[in-house]
Amino acid sequence: MDLRILEHRVRVLSLARRGLWRYTHPLLKLLLLPRRTRCKFFSLTETPEDYTIMLDEEGYKELPPSEFMQVVDATWLVLNVLSNGRSAGSSQVIGVTKIAKSVIAPLAEHSVSVLMLSTYQTDYILVREKDLPVVIRTLAGEFDIYKETNGDSIPVSCDDVSSSFLKPRHETSPTVHPVQSPRNKFCILTVAPDTLPAIATVLLDVLFYSQSPPKEAAPGGPGPDTIRFFAFSLIDGYISIVMDAETQKKFPSDLLLTSSSGELWRMVRIGGQPLGFDECGIVAQIAEPLADADISAYYISTFNFDHALVPEDGIDSVIQLLHRRQEAVDGWRSSSRGL
Amino acid sequence: MDLRILEHRVRVLSLARRGLWRYTHPLLKLLLLPRRTRCKFFSLTETPEDYTIMLDEEGYKELPPSEFMQVVDATWLVLNVLSNGRSAGSSQVIGVTKIAKSVIAPLAEHSVSVLMLSTYQTDYILVREKDLPVVIRTLAGEFDIYKETNGDSIPVSCDDVSSSFLKPRHETSPTVHPVQSPRNKFCILTVAPDTLPAIATVLLDVLFYSQSPPKEAAPGGPGPDTIRFFAFSLIDGYISIVMDAETQKKFPSDLLLTSSSGELWRMVRIGGQPLGFDECGIVAQIAEPLADADISAYYISTFNFDHALVPEDGIDSVIQLLHRRQEAVDGWRSSSRGL
Repeated sequence: MDLRILEHRVRVLSLARRGLWRYTHPLLKLLLLPRRTRCKFFSLTETPEDYTIMLDEEGYKELPPSEFMQVVDATWLVLNVLSNGRSAGSSQVIGVTKIAKSVIAPLAEHSVSVLMLSTYQTDYILVREKDLPVVIRTLAGEFDIYKETNGDSIPVSCDDVSSSFLKPRHETSPTVHPVQSPRNKFCILTVAPDTLPAIATVLLDVLFYSQSPPKEAAPGGPGPDTIRFFAFSLIDGYISIVMDAETQKKFPSDLLLTSSSGELWRMVRIGGQPLGFDECGIVAQIAEPLADADISAYYISTFNFDHALVPEDGIDSVIQLLHRRQEAVDGWRSSSRGL
Repeated sequence: MDLRILEHRVRVLSLARRGLWRYTHPLLKLLLLPRRTRCKFFSLTETPEDYTIMLDEEGYKELPPSEFMQVVDATWLVLNVLSNGRSAGSSQVIGVTKIAKSVIAPLAEHSVSVLMLSTYQTDYILVREKDLPVVIRTLAGEFDIYKETNGDSIPVSCDDVSSSFLKPRHETSPTVHPVQSPRNKFCILTVAPDTLPAIATVLLDVLFYSQSPPKEAAPGGPGPDTIRFFAFSLIDGYISIVMDAETQKKFPSDLLLTSSSGELWRMVRIGGQPLGFDECGIVAQIAEPLADADISAYYISTFNFDHALVPEDGIDSVIQLLHRRQEAVDGWRSSSRGL
């Protein structure tokens, strides 16, 4: 399989809800007016906590610093796996499950922390720029690696990178983070770029003006066990939207495209406390058991928490799976302490 | 004829170009998302100097004060003439010309300063709330006057208003303001409210992101003798747009509706220095000669200057007309000073 290191150099930041007005002008441009910006990698994810934005340096320049913005102190590079028709594992599974064993697990073992951004089209793995040598050495066995430079794909070999950065393999047992499963159902959609204008007002309405918290929601709004979650990305000209099935009803039904099966997805939200950006293996602890069970999953990291989306009819087995794993780790810890 | 005093209580303000980002969030709502706001009278006019906003108090609440905003210290009421099929003067002329003799001139004579807002649908005359008694006494002879209250039209008679506010008639000779005539041509258009979303991205692009000054304009942009001018209004559910014919090309051609003649308009811009809000007779000095010559005109006041739009093929005679009037006043002044 091929692994591409994309040209985008990405910054990751959090925008406070109360500061959204401050950024509406540049965000409008990044969302809807691609001709007005040189940004090619833009992702905006609304969660109850904040808006997480991942965007390349061209886009980042458009966002003036303010007290409402927190930026992760690192530049991230974007990895993308091209299957070349040869799927890793079952050809049925999609999303992060497909790269769990080949990318996610090895990077976790080599102490590389990753952020994931699944879209309708593909799955992006974000790694810190400084970790790139380790990433290449770790994955060169499994993949042909190419670095995109000025539009060309240049092969990268292990010899190109110093081995001095290779970190010791991860040995300690991972922190197992609590998971929650909100009751709302999600769709994973795309829109043809030339029809984006036709959904612009609804998109703006949903993203910028649906700010009443769930407690104050009108009848028909999200219930108490649901989560506000809306992810929009515009990457290299491709649009991807993840939204609640209720929210989807606000959009013209003929313009949002989904896979032919039209399935709905449930969310597993990872983290009781904000996860931070240094811990390794967070994605792996979810993706590996799902890969073992052949369950597809999209995965979207945000500034505070991670979010996996699994097929609606698989949510119960996923939750069981993750609970069993938690018990197993607890058991391992107890026994290793001689209890 | 009937004159309606509408329910809207309107504020008039100027937004500095450099502060537009500060107001993008509320303006988006006022422009495109009528369900998110209780504002029923909203007008935004871009000129080289600033953005002039006229909006009712519900809309005004959405705009937080800042160093970028200047607000006229008055509340304005909105007058609207219903022709009842009986047109004043020629049935061919439209716009402010039609009400020049019956409304504009009498108000000027009674020292009532007015702001005009012509739209595709009609012409709104804004008067200060405190001038309403004078307005009613001045116009009651010519019109049946109705005040809209909670959706009903209540007849108003002169007896309802105190006569103590009636000001002396205006006797001094008016200031004659210089006029300019930029070379660009304008269209006066409407859009069906349910197709507004289809032009939303172009509208946002034109209003919020076309900010390079004419000097730096790309080839094909406005020339040196042209003016940046774009007026959008959404009043009681009706949309009106005045834009440069070049700007119109950016919009989908099938969604903008104009009168069947599809004529183009040229601008007469009134004022060498900002006009302020206290002087009376500024509209009258333009509208009366046009009425005498049976030339249609739309008229849009902004924070600093006034703008009349006249049929393309009438611009030369209008300019001649206004110059002759200027000379006449100059002559009158010279002779009255005994020179």
